[in-house]
Amino acid sequence: MTTESHETTGAYVTPGQEFTRDTAYIQTRVTADGRDGYPVEPGRYRLVVARACPWANRAIIVRRLLGLEGALSMGVCGPTHDRRSWTFDLDPGGVDPVLGIPRLQDAYFARFPGYERGITVPALVEVATGQVVTNDYAQLTLDLSTQWREHHRDGAPELYPEHLRDEIDAVAKLVFRDVNNGVYKCGFAGSQAAYERAYTRLFDRLDWLTQRLSTQRYLVGDTLTEADVRLFTTLVRFDAVYHGHFKCNRQKLTEMPVLWAYARDLFQTPGFGDTVDFDHIKRHYYVVHTDLNPTQIVPSGPDLAGWLVPSGREALGGRPFGDGTPPGPPLAAEIVPREHTAAG
Amino acid sequence: MTTESHETTGAYVTPGQEFTRDTAYIQTRVTADGRDGYPVEPGRYRLVVARACPWANRAIIVRRLLGLEGALSMGVCGPTHDRRSWTFDLDPGGVDPVLGIPRLQDAYFARFPGYERGITVPALVEVATGQVVTNDYAQLTLDLSTQWREHHRDGAPELYPEHLRDEIDAVAKLVFRDVNNGVYKCGFAGSQAAYERAYTRLFDRLDWLTQRLSTQRYLVGDTLTEADVRLFTTLVRFDAVYHGHFKCNRQKLTEMPVLWAYARDLFQTPGFGDTVDFDHIKRHYYVVHTDLNPTQIVPSGPDLAGWLVPSGREALGGRPFGDGTPPGPPLAAEIVPREHTAAG
Repeated sequence: MTTESHETTGAYVTPGQEFTRDTAYIQTRVTADGRDGYPVEPGRYRLVVARACPWANRAIIVRRLLGLEGALSMGVCGPTHDRRSWTFDLDPGGVDPVLGIPRLQDAYFARFPGYERGITVPALVEVATGQVVTNDYAQLTLDLSTQWREHHRDGAPELYPEHLRDEIDAVAKLVFRDVNNGVYKCGFAGSQAAYERAYTRLFDRLDWLTQRLSTQRYLVGDTLTEADVRLFTTLVRFDAVYHGHFKCNRQKLTEMPVLWAYARDLFQTPGFGDTVDFDHIKRHYYVVHTDLNPTQIVPSGPDLAGWLVPSGREALGGRPFGDGTPPGPPLAAEIVPREHTAAG
Repeated sequence: MTTESHETTGAYVTPGQEFTRDTAYIQTRVTADGRDGYPVEPGRYRLVVARACPWANRAIIVRRLLGLEGALSMGVCGPTHDRRSWTFDLDPGGVDPVLGIPRLQDAYFARFPGYERGITVPALVEVATGQVVTNDYAQLTLDLSTQWREHHRDGAPELYPEHLRDEIDAVAKLVFRDVNNGVYKCGFAGSQAAYERAYTRLFDRLDWLTQRLSTQRYLVGDTLTEADVRLFTTLVRFDAVYHGHFKCNRQKLTEMPVLWAYARDLFQTPGFGDTVDFDHIKRHYYVVHTDLNPTQIVPSGPDLAGWLVPSGREALGGRPFGDGTPPGPPLAAEIVPREHTAAG
């Protein structure tokens, strides 16, 4: 996903209206028991993502943390899709080497000819048939945690532990409404009043998160969970795109000390920062949303060096991976180019 | 002035090109000896400004510092002009109470029928004839200091002292090219390359200014001068409009400690901060430049409270007003509404 329910028109802002996300996704699930006809099976599916997209970034992180790289391969779309589809323009010949298609819509059409909703990432595609299975990003990461368990690496963390699910769900719901989707409601507001409502809710929620995170290292419990993954993908984009492009500008993340330290702590945790491509993030937002940025000029800032400064959050306690261990380095083919990172 | 050489078309960005400011102004001067036919004389002229505009802000500040309010009245245009002219939409009936005109272009046309260049502020208008005398903003403030001396208040500072003029001119030239006008070259760049050139020059110059101001309180000498006025009007707008709207986003001003303290020191000096209307500034840039911000939505941020935090710059020494004194409070009719200020 991202903003792509609107991609068929190229217009993200509807004058006079607030932004409403199309949340009707393909609800087929890949499960251990194969109840929808799609059982978990190593090599059977390909995860298609774009590093620019915060919703896809969740899946990239969870796959890394759980060590699913060997069981579930990953195709990466370029940052700037056209009006209709994300494309594999980063790959040799502009074709995904496993699926053999140039555009993600081909996988959607293979299963649903004439599919009319957004061609969104992340998407799970069945390699043999070339058909999309699901693009339901919220269910997808939970299923990676719960359904793919047999293929997790040794030492994989429990990102969605049973005894914390109610609390994770409750926090994630508020974070989705006011933060993950809230920044889009600021940026794509079609009226001053709609913008101001979204802005207030966003920063009120960030203040609430500051309170919560001032005394505990992670959002729920004392280890990394799905709740942290979901908040992180918005925070890591905050100063690069949401602050200026979406006018979420009460403060920068760097000016909110608790959230800035929390975000840096995660960024420096294996599996988080190593999935982030700031170049793709900036190019996606500033080039694709021509109704917000008609010149398509991509800002040179912000200075990213601060992401590598120690956060000091260890002092709050917490065990990032619980009884598990951090993941190893990314696959060589999946390393983000250094010049697209905070070290570049 | 401001961006108004382009106002007849409504387009500020020329695709493929860098932004080039039309710097041909009306060069008639109001002088003590009246050499151009316009002698200095109390009550004879009206200074027309817009609080949004950084070039007009210079004149507002200098008039305040020198105590010229009684000798030179001031008309204030609203923040959002139309394609052709700044207008007196803040005044009862939409007409300037002294000049009796609704639009500043009327004063330009009164002297130059069919005037085709930008209708810019600041402008000096002769009240009796209703004719514009000059809009040459750079000469104007120097003339307020040097030609209107007889009408300065007791204790007025020397903003352009003879022994420092070469240095003030040299610094002001660099500041104009890379900072005052540099932010516009970022914002109105018609190509990625033109933007990146301007961005680099801007932040290189800000780094140079940081060096210079880390050991001295003011830009030239040990008192306030015209050089400080000229830098201030860009810095005070930096986070409100240039950072996001013009993509001058390596850091916010609040993240550049020396410049931020310098700007706060000036802001808190009588005659500087009390001339600044953040509401007008934001509305001007975000509403008028529709080719940068088609939605015309005005950001709610940034949080302005930091402007009132003490700067600690007194520790560097310096005598703000030299042998003079600070100005008194603004005229009642010229007080910026509290909700448009950093205290609002």
